[in-house]
Amino acid sequence: MFERIRVIMVETSEAGNIGAAARAMKNMALSRLYLVKPKNFPSAVATARASGADDVLSNAIVCESLIQALDGCHLVIGASARQRSIKWQQLDVVESCSLIDKTLKTQDQEVAIIFGTENAGLTNEQLDLCQVLMTIPGNPDYFSLNIAQAIQVFSYQLFVQFQQKSVINEEVKNLASFKELENFYQHLEKVMLEIDYVDKTKPIEKLIRRIRALFNRALPLKDEVAILRGFLTQVEKIRK
Amino acid sequence: MFERIRVIMVETSEAGNIGAAARAMKNMALSRLYLVKPKNFPSAVATARASGADDVLSNAIVCESLIQALDGCHLVIGASARQRSIKWQQLDVVESCSLIDKTLKTQDQEVAIIFGTENAGLTNEQLDLCQVLMTIPGNPDYFSLNIAQAIQVFSYQLFVQFQQKSVINEEVKNLASFKELENFYQHLEKVMLEIDYVDKTKPIEKLIRRIRALFNRALPLKDEVAILRGFLTQVEKIRK
Repeated sequence: MFERIRVIMVETSEAGNIGAAARAMKNMALSRLYLVKPKNFPSAVATARASGADDVLSNAIVCESLIQALDGCHLVIGASARQRSIKWQQLDVVESCSLIDKTLKTQDQEVAIIFGTENAGLTNEQLDLCQVLMTIPGNPDYFSLNIAQAIQVFSYQLFVQFQQKSVINEEVKNLASFKELENFYQHLEKVMLEIDYVDKTKPIEKLIRRIRALFNRALPLKDEVAILRGFLTQVEKIRK
Repeated sequence: MFERIRVIMVETSEAGNIGAAARAMKNMALSRLYLVKPKNFPSAVATARASGADDVLSNAIVCESLIQALDGCHLVIGASARQRSIKWQQLDVVESCSLIDKTLKTQDQEVAIIFGTENAGLTNEQLDLCQVLMTIPGNPDYFSLNIAQAIQVFSYQLFVQFQQKSVINEEVKNLASFKELENFYQHLEKVMLEIDYVDKTKPIEKLIRRIRALFNRALPLKDEVAILRGFLTQVEKIRK
């Protein structure tokens, strides 16, 4: 299971945090670290903070974009320090790890969990790529988890989840891949433009964001996306 | 509850770890830090790593001995990276937090959780003062949690334990009504028939059932359904 989970750190500023994250991960048997445009990597500071987990660092995959880092994933979870608009499906750490567990019961499915920058977390554009927003419970009067601490909490909870001899053998399978979903959203946007279904007073990005949120919450299956794509293709056909 | 729990760090070498521990604690609503013979405290390094949790540091109680730090406690738990002799009662983090919870149900009882040095953990003599030995589950091939990471895991688990009692009153609002959803499904079916998007070899009920399942999972909001209805209306318009 552990080898089909990737931890993605986006535009991390402090190299020490990358090292501490690697150590947190390895302690809980996670090994696949993706770094999207890290400010300072590789770095001696990161290696020192990683302690014996320097193999996680040397195997880390550095990416130019978040979309590149998500290639091949079926469940994409974004970590968020604060509650956001209800349009995203919000799960706490325990619930998120339970969903990951069910998703990984299908052999060829992969999961990504994304952590944003130290100062601002994930942007709305980055969250648009996520199906689930993971929140970490904590002190309502002071919530300022360091990114490596957040990865520590997540990694621990996931290890505990996997350890529980799954009583319920529920499986989440046949999920559409990240690429299949992205292709659907692009197709939908194209058709909406073609048939003039755009409120000219509002930016189309906002409309697409709403639609992404709706579908992402549902965790669409492969054949469901195929049905929707077929519908769009038919709309294009009758238009010509 | 939180105010009757003390976290005790024994002979900690690195001031940065004390700061990170304070931050981990405060994020999870813990505030009482005891330091037994710290090597370097107070320290600017500790304060920097504490981020906004410097009040935990300034209120920390520095002690000359572990026995002094334990004065007034009713349940004493020692954290250990490795399994020890069976003479101690060993509980994992989840079990330990459950026990703490039960202990604190009695109003005047206090709990201490002790973390040893970075290099060697707690000595057997220190563990002799403990009633319970708390183990943290993790990677059997690499277990080297930093002391602040261990405190993070414990603090998180304790917060989750305390939270479980309070019924979460999360609000789910602005959901589309049953009627709005039904109207949408009927509209969709009508458009699918109009544009000949039906696989003639299969009954349409089956297709509609698949689509219902997809949307129902997402718990669509009112305005999301409005967007979809608008899209369908536009498809009908370009067809005419």
